[in-house]
Amino acid sequence: MSDNSYGKLFRVTTWGESHGPSIGCVVDGVPPRLSLCEADLQIFLDQRRPGQNRFTTQRQEPDQVQIISGVFEGVTTGTPISLIIENKDQRSKDYGDIKDKYRPGHADFTYMEKYGIRDYRGGGRSSARETAMRVAAGGVARKVLGDDIKITGALVQIGEHKINRDNWDDEQISKNPFWCPDAEMAKTWEAYLDKIRKAGSSIGAVIEVRASGVPAGLGAPIYGKLDGDLAAAMMSINAVKGVEIGSGFETAALTGEENADQIRIKNDKPHFKSNHAGGILGGISSGQDVVVRFVVKPTSSILTPRDTIDNHGNETEILTKGRHDPCVGIRAVPIGEAMMACVLADHIMRHKAQCG
Amino acid sequence: MSDNSYGKLFRVTTWGESHGPSIGCVVDGVPPRLSLCEADLQIFLDQRRPGQNRFTTQRQEPDQVQIISGVFEGVTTGTPISLIIENKDQRSKDYGDIKDKYRPGHADFTYMEKYGIRDYRGGGRSSARETAMRVAAGGVARKVLGDDIKITGALVQIGEHKINRDNWDDEQISKNPFWCPDAEMAKTWEAYLDKIRKAGSSIGAVIEVRASGVPAGLGAPIYGKLDGDLAAAMMSINAVKGVEIGSGFETAALTGEENADQIRIKNDKPHFKSNHAGGILGGISSGQDVVVRFVVKPTSSILTPRDTIDNHGNETEILTKGRHDPCVGIRAVPIGEAMMACVLADHIMRHKAQCG
Amino acid sequence: MSDNSYGKLFRVTTWGESHGPSIGCVVDGVPPRLSLCEADLQIFLDQRRPGQNRFTTQRQEPDQVQIISGVFEGVTTGTPISLIIENKDQRSKDYGDIKDKYRPGHADFTYMEKYGIRDYRGGGRSSARETAMRVAAGGVARKVLGDDIKITGALVQIGEHKINRDNWDDEQISKNPFWCPDAEMAKTWEAYLDKIRKAGSSIGAVIEVRASGVPAGLGAPIYGKLDGDLAAAMMSINAVKGVEIGSGFETAALTGEENADQIRIKNDKPHFKSNHAGGILGGISSGQDVVVRFVVKPTSSILTPRDTIDNHGNETEILTKGRHDPCVGIRAVPIGEAMMACVLADHIMRHKAQCG
Amino acid sequence: MSDNSYGKLFRVTTWGESHGPSIGCVVDGVPPRLSLCEADLQIFLDQRRPGQNRFTTQRQEPDQVQIISGVFEGVTTGTPISLIIENKDQRSKDYGDIKDKYRPGHADFTYMEKYGIRDYRGGGRSSARETAMRVAAGGVARKVLGDDIKITGALVQIGEHKINRDNWDDEQISKNPFWCPDAEMAKTWEAYLDKIRKAGSSIGAVIEVRASGVPAGLGAPIYGKLDGDLAAAMMSINAVKGVEIGSGFETAALTGEENADQIRIKNDKPHFKSNHAGGILGGISSGQDVVVRFVVKPTSSILTPRDTIDNHGNETEILTKGRHDPCVGIRAVPIGEAMMACVLADHIMRHKAQCG
Repeated sequence: MSDNSYGKLFRVTTWGESHGPSIGCVVDGVPPRLSLCEADLQIFLDQRRPGQNRFTTQRQEPDQVQIISGVFEGVTTGTPISLIIENKDQRSKDYGDIKDKYRPGHADFTYMEKYGIRDYRGGGRSSARETAMRVAAGGVARKVLGDDIKITGALVQIGEHKINRDNWDDEQISKNPFWCPDAEMAKTWEAYLDKIRKAGSSIGAVIEVRASGVPAGLGAPIYGKLDGDLAAAMMSINAVKGVEIGSGFETAALTGEENADQIRIKNDKPHFKSNHAGGILGGISSGQDVVVRFVVKPTSSILTPRDTIDNHGNETEILTKGRHDPCVGIRAVPIGEAMMACVLADHIMRHKAQCG
Repeated sequence: MSDNSYGKLFRVTTWGESHGPSIGCVVDGVPPRLSLCEADLQIFLDQRRPGQNRFTTQRQEPDQVQIISGVFEGVTTGTPISLIIENKDQRSKDYGDIKDKYRPGHADFTYMEKYGIRDYRGGGRSSARETAMRVAAGGVARKVLGDDIKITGALVQIGEHKINRDNWDDEQISKNPFWCPDAEMAKTWEAYLDKIRKAGSSIGAVIEVRASGVPAGLGAPIYGKLDGDLAAAMMSINAVKGVEIGSGFETAALTGEENADQIRIKNDKPHFKSNHAGGILGGISSGQDVVVRFVVKPTSSILTPRDTIDNHGNETEILTKGRHDPCVGIRAVPIGEAMMACVLADHIMRHKAQCG
Repeated sequence: MSDNSYGKLFRVTTWGESHGPSIGCVVDGVPPRLSLCEADLQIFLDQRRPGQNRFTTQRQEPDQVQIISGVFEGVTTGTPISLIIENKDQRSKDYGDIKDKYRPGHADFTYMEKYGIRDYRGGGRSSARETAMRVAAGGVARKVLGDDIKITGALVQIGEHKINRDNWDDEQISKNPFWCPDAEMAKTWEAYLDKIRKAGSSIGAVIEVRASGVPAGLGAPIYGKLDGDLAAAMMSINAVKGVEIGSGFETAALTGEENADQIRIKNDKPHFKSNHAGGILGGISSGQDVVVRFVVKPTSSILTPRDTIDNHGNETEILTKGRHDPCVGIRAVPIGEAMMACVLADHIMRHKAQCG
Repeated sequence: MSDNSYGKLFRVTTWGESHGPSIGCVVDGVPPRLSLCEADLQIFLDQRRPGQNRFTTQRQEPDQVQIISGVFEGVTTGTPISLIIENKDQRSKDYGDIKDKYRPGHADFTYMEKYGIRDYRGGGRSSARETAMRVAAGGVARKVLGDDIKITGALVQIGEHKINRDNWDDEQISKNPFWCPDAEMAKTWEAYLDKIRKAGSSIGAVIEVRASGVPAGLGAPIYGKLDGDLAAAMMSINAVKGVEIGSGFETAALTGEENADQIRIKNDKPHFKSNHAGGILGGISSGQDVVVRFVVKPTSSILTPRDTIDNHGNETEILTKGRHDPCVGIRAVPIGEAMMACVLADHIMRHKAQCG
């Protein structure tokens, strides 16, 4: 991936800082004559918006997206689609205290090491605000995917509390503030996060994204593998520290007999008896559900003082005041869905070019 | 990543099939006037070679690498370096039975779905033989890294058996057939794998690769993040189903206080009190050890019959005869080290271009 | 080059249509801590602006550029620099007559063939308006180049009238409306273009761009050659039909003795006795002036009826009314300079990465 | 373009030096199940081979190409196709005299400036030998193009002597040693080049490549334009100093009325009355013949002593002995055809991905 673009044919370039006047992206390579309007994208952005419940950040971020090129009379022209979101809520003073200190766990230190300068206001480009544009781009990607491919994201673990997969019900996901498919666990999480939030602390989480209806054949061995691109895409989301496909790290403890998904015929079509592979074999989609999980670390913006240094080399302490997210992982669910959409759109086009 | 190349400036393109006459790669963008000879690369290939012990495949693969361009009078010229390995051991008949059947867990089915044709001999391009070229390319990458960066790979888990990190001793890694840094666990693994092998079964594993001496500043947010490229690189290795950085999936259960690595000053330099971040913050290296782990699933080439279908849509069974690997993860250690080397070399050059 | 981006390390992605609300670009990979402000870019845009004289288009295009990311406290941060220009002057009705007819010599026909849809207003993305963003990006590139590299563009031919190279005086270039370095020829062109304009016709031109102070060593054989990238860059400018380096097409009629630039020593440094090579040998800069010429065809928006067809397959005629450019080549001079700047900036960074 | 690869989807990476043991290339992204064998490629290489007449170099270069991956049972598999040619004729001593001196007009000086080292034997990577692999890759590209697209290259000018276009006869091209479509001019060139050769001198040439049957719609504005990629591709051929499309540099002296190709309907399809555009409008193919011309400078390896310097900064003279090419342009015809084929194959795939 280039530094501010991802994708080979369905290509997204994002720009903007959380405390600049706006953020935006350019989506390039979109097929022509797909219907597209701002409402098609706004629906995904509205899912992402904090302030919806007491468990996510209390910033007011309206996030209204505008399409300013690439669409004519309601359809895509094939030329690049430029999207823009004005930054409305930029309370600089929340961060003003910390222009000289490095917040542990944040990118403050590494940005300064790399560039010799950093925009301390709101995390600059390392802020999660940039991900709003990815969600918008994901809305465009879904037009390329069409209606047969369905993408479903869910939270499957907060702290030590994993969902019970036997209780999995897609309908539950939109019925609680946690994108939780297990109604029981949603209640456990509610009490748990209340404690975390009141303590001014934070906790990590695991998100699972599933794509069904994905045709077999997507992905190009060896370095254009579908799982390779999914791994890079999810890892590029802020605060992600791991990505796995299908049974992921559990396969370490599986035998060959347990792990290989055996194949039968059902309704005259290949049918797999299990899905440890997560829908990808040898880097190519098999037609089964593509299942990806990624872990989001706990935010380091917490209300407890932490040992750190300042940019003059002195030991000091830092305390983040004001608004904070007890579990940033919750907000990552629509972002994971958007990344899945963009990677699949790119691969659908790449497969069509070579084998279509 | 392009389909058969990876890297942006330190770029590697591999080619070849396991049952063709040779395999090779082109390493492009190497700085000029670095000393390089075949012995520099052969040392890493010899680490990879099976037949060394009864726990890895019994194929005889001498793997002698030749440098056929890009080096003049013992130093690199700056022009592309072409490497080639002749394929010596190609017992086709080991696979001849299975040209029409799909081995579950292998890429047979997906290659046919994608291309409408597959080379059934030895797994074609999905075979692990291609990774020999990566190991060779990794040898070139180490010249770019120089002597200050040290890369150490180790196996940290086979099946349910994780090492005891308190026993970690780098010296042990080369003293047992498992790249195991825990002398005690090496014995446990020996007995365990004997059982697996005799049963004609296979098991998964987790590999950890650590790079020390990595300067701070490598990686380019947002889509050129160091961890994003490492994730894609490790995921591209055959049979990998997950990648994590630092504390990885464990961070789901850590609080913000536990996870953020606090900073002090020691010897006039920043010193981190822990390394949950795995040496990468905001996608940029911090100067700490870069720590990556990836899981390798159990091979699906086992000696138990499995349910499958053939390419005419009939249900059938398949049995792989002959040589097999009870734990392919063991062989992945040098490959993981090579990928780490290539990604770091690429990022060192990219950082130098923009900020050097 | 990707479809809407060019450059490998100094990478520019442009977006926007002439009749949309704005146009913009993202400049990615810029080194940090270079001083940059809007005035630095505006100066180049003001050179490009039509309405300055009766020989260029009478559209009023104020072209005020805004920097909306990537700069902090007056210097670049290393993060992407987003530039935006609001479109002020969009008199749609000038084009309203021709939504169904293809203007010969324009891209109307080919856009419809490719995409099945075209934005007929003002030429959509094929319009010359997009080039304003290139000029802005060129302003950023000059910061990367530094003060030692000087880029000078000039018009050297309009119609049959070539300048007399013995009269070449850089000072004259800014003293007439034609960027002409030959004071005599400027007068000839003035009379000539008055005739062309009054006849409602148009004529072609040749532009020469010279870069001095370019260090030797830029360019990476074989497919990253400096002249290859310059050729692609100039060819991407609207209406360009040819590019040549140094003595260009004249070398067909030169002998080896005449063409090869012999080398002597002067002031202890290599000194070339001539510059037929145009500063590039084997795709790498030699330290001499880099000299590129490109030809701009006459605009097809003229005031004479032309035979064409409409998008229902009927033969018809078309007449472009309103404002037109008798010689679009004049406006291409700052664009050629900008492309030279961007390509050199990219190559400086690439060379530094590999050989610096 | 990356430094040793070109193309976005139909991607070619070449490697090798003229005096190494072999040269090769990897062709990546080829659609599966196209019939392909070595004879399909050898036919194009045999056209390129010198020693066929006294006007081209007297080196014996058999150039037998081997396909060593990517083809199975006579068809492409979709995996990368690796081609290799052994270097048979490597009379090093022809060049041994000049390891310290820079030949004017060659890349000796610039390679040393860039890399600080150069392989002086036979021109290393700047040699024309690398182009043999392009011709082989062009053979693969033609499989992607199919039978409807026909590519015809011809020499149209040597020295001052241009062909008479009224005499153009495709049949003549293979009937003389110059790829000349004008039987009369072929005789003139014969006498002319005899003089040049006997004088130990050399002369430049212009090559024209025409592709007919190209569908409309290829090319992706703005930076993926078909003419931009053609310009870069032709410019990357050794010794090329200029590229033009259609009427090229002549359009400078054409009016808008003269230059714009008017459109009528013929047989129910759009029919252009002329082809000044060279088959490309706004960077997209129009369905007309795509016409590209490029100029090859005279070789600098001539039998007259030239002023130069050595790599210790001393003024000296240099004389190239042995074999030489009076007109290297002649050999460039099949290379130009191959580049046309590769660029069109790439664009056909790109267009299919987005708009197919």
